[in-house]
Amino acid sequence: MLIDGLQCGDFRREIFESLRAGGFTCVTNTVEFWGGAINSLDAIADWLDKERANSDLMMICRNVADIHTADKTGKVGVLLGFQNSGMFEGRIRYPELFAQLGVRVAQLTYNIQNDIGGSCYEPHDSGLTRFGREIIGEMNKYGMMVDCSHVGEKTTLDAIEASSKPIAVTHANAGSLMPHFRNKSDTVLKALAESGGIMGLAIYPNITPKEACDSVDGWAEMMARTVDIMGLEHVGVGTDAGHYVGTPELDWMRQGRWTRSDQYGAGAKDRALMPPPPKWLPDISKMGLLPAALERRGFSQEEIHLLTAGNWLRVYEANFG
Amino acid sequence: MLIDGLQCGDFRREIFESLRAGGFTCVTNTVEFWGGAINSLDAIADWLDKERANSDLMMICRNVADIHTADKTGKVGVLLGFQNSGMFEGRIRYPELFAQLGVRVAQLTYNIQNDIGGSCYEPHDSGLTRFGREIIGEMNKYGMMVDCSHVGEKTTLDAIEASSKPIAVTHANAGSLMPHFRNKSDTVLKALAESGGIMGLAIYPNITPKEACDSVDGWAEMMARTVDIMGLEHVGVGTDAGHYVGTPELDWMRQGRWTRSDQYGAGAKDRALMPPPPKWLPDISKMGLLPAALERRGFSQEEIHLLTAGNWLRVYEANFG
Repeated sequence: MLIDGLQCGDFRREIFESLRAGGFTCVTNTVEFWGGAINSLDAIADWLDKERANSDLMMICRNVADIHTADKTGKVGVLLGFQNSGMFEGRIRYPELFAQLGVRVAQLTYNIQNDIGGSCYEPHDSGLTRFGREIIGEMNKYGMMVDCSHVGEKTTLDAIEASSKPIAVTHANAGSLMPHFRNKSDTVLKALAESGGIMGLAIYPNITPKEACDSVDGWAEMMARTVDIMGLEHVGVGTDAGHYVGTPELDWMRQGRWTRSDQYGAGAKDRALMPPPPKWLPDISKMGLLPAALERRGFSQEEIHLLTAGNWLRVYEANFG
Repeated sequence: MLIDGLQCGDFRREIFESLRAGGFTCVTNTVEFWGGAINSLDAIADWLDKERANSDLMMICRNVADIHTADKTGKVGVLLGFQNSGMFEGRIRYPELFAQLGVRVAQLTYNIQNDIGGSCYEPHDSGLTRFGREIIGEMNKYGMMVDCSHVGEKTTLDAIEASSKPIAVTHANAGSLMPHFRNKSDTVLKALAESGGIMGLAIYPNITPKEACDSVDGWAEMMARTVDIMGLEHVGVGTDAGHYVGTPELDWMRQGRWTRSDQYGAGAKDRALMPPPPKWLPDISKMGLLPAALERRGFSQEEIHLLTAGNWLRVYEANFG
């Protein structure tokens, strides 16, 4: 099994074929970045259409049993996830509704502050707000996992404390291995581990050490070093792979509708464009190289299972088993 | 002339009659507390209907010349104002659109944090966000005055600094005279005055000293003491009078859609209900008692004009003259 905590972009039929070729059992998608409730309903409806059109290749998973079904039937499972909380529209009763629609993962903030808390890119992180604390309570109650990947340090630590279920950083790396706003301090990693949570490690070049982009063994080494920080049971895969993400899509992710200024997200002014894919992963189907690399790094088959799928399954089970 | 920086509630025809009897030249209403863009469009459309239905009594003012027209024709002018920024829906381009629709005042946050900044009730005030800074730029550009009445201290100070136009605290009191989350520190009052801004003093009993609720002379005394802090040119009237505000309306203001918990706003658990009106102001038409009280307190006619109207006109002129 191979579970990926986050991908984004345009999941065309070819992508499901590549994901199947890469051995992916289940992938959390990005239903929306900036959408409000109506945009999000439309985007969920698009995914239901997509499931009907590709039912031989993929299925939407609503619980852990569905992920096992995807595995057994050789389909790519998709967990519906959001990289922002705009679909809640500031309403405490909407996590229940979006959970009923199958949404299983929601990131508290994307790249800017909202009514829930602060983003990793905000100069000053507010921490979790009163509304944010209540929203997490609802997400816990109705089976929607909290994601803090783009969330600020203080808000992330508050969320770990506030959540009665283990939370995830679905797509980031250890800041001590690759310093970046988007990556997480050892303080966060340890708090996440202590609370039973998980971090999915990314391959997105802007936030991933060069060695981990250059070879699958380098990426396995990064995973091993993250295990040294967090422990074996708290590390997983969260590639942040983006399908058909070109400049317009990147501009949308970064600028959305919130600014008239140029924003570079995880990039920078002198590297504003979408970076080329990691050398070892020209397309997502090459992800199948990972288990062998982890084996070469010295992990047992049981440990490899935890790192590539088992840890996600444990956290999913706790949230929406 | 008498200009009131903020009122709220249900402006029925009788209210316009009372406002006219009270000598009000112009009142900023509360188009919305919690609405998003569509709710806000509907609420603005309701006000256009209201203007047609009461055209003998009131008119919507879009600029300072309109306020003078209201004065000359004996109508109550209404400035369209919002106590929150939900109508922007996180979009940098919406201040321009809502300004075209006649909106002249917008409070950056109501009682909870949003994408712009922190509220006075939030345990931790984020300060003005990157989006907040850009939104203020747009408001400045398109003639919408920034209101920081319910906004947190840090965000208010940041907004004063960020705005190229003088800003307002439309309805609050000096915290040094009446300690309360909703009232403003001398630091804020002085920064506001230095930047050419204004604070409208409230009569809402939860945030107003007892003596200022008990008699119009007590209220004039509070105004005089606020002038001592801020200077004569930076104090105005901002009653925060609420028309037909009962328990359901108060619950809506306080709880909105953001919480399942009880919230008391400017009240408290043991005084959760709408407080009775100030003794000297059983209805808004008694506001006409104010100029004489200010005269008794020793203000000249010219000074009284500044305090009851002129200071607002100066700030309005700077924002949307």
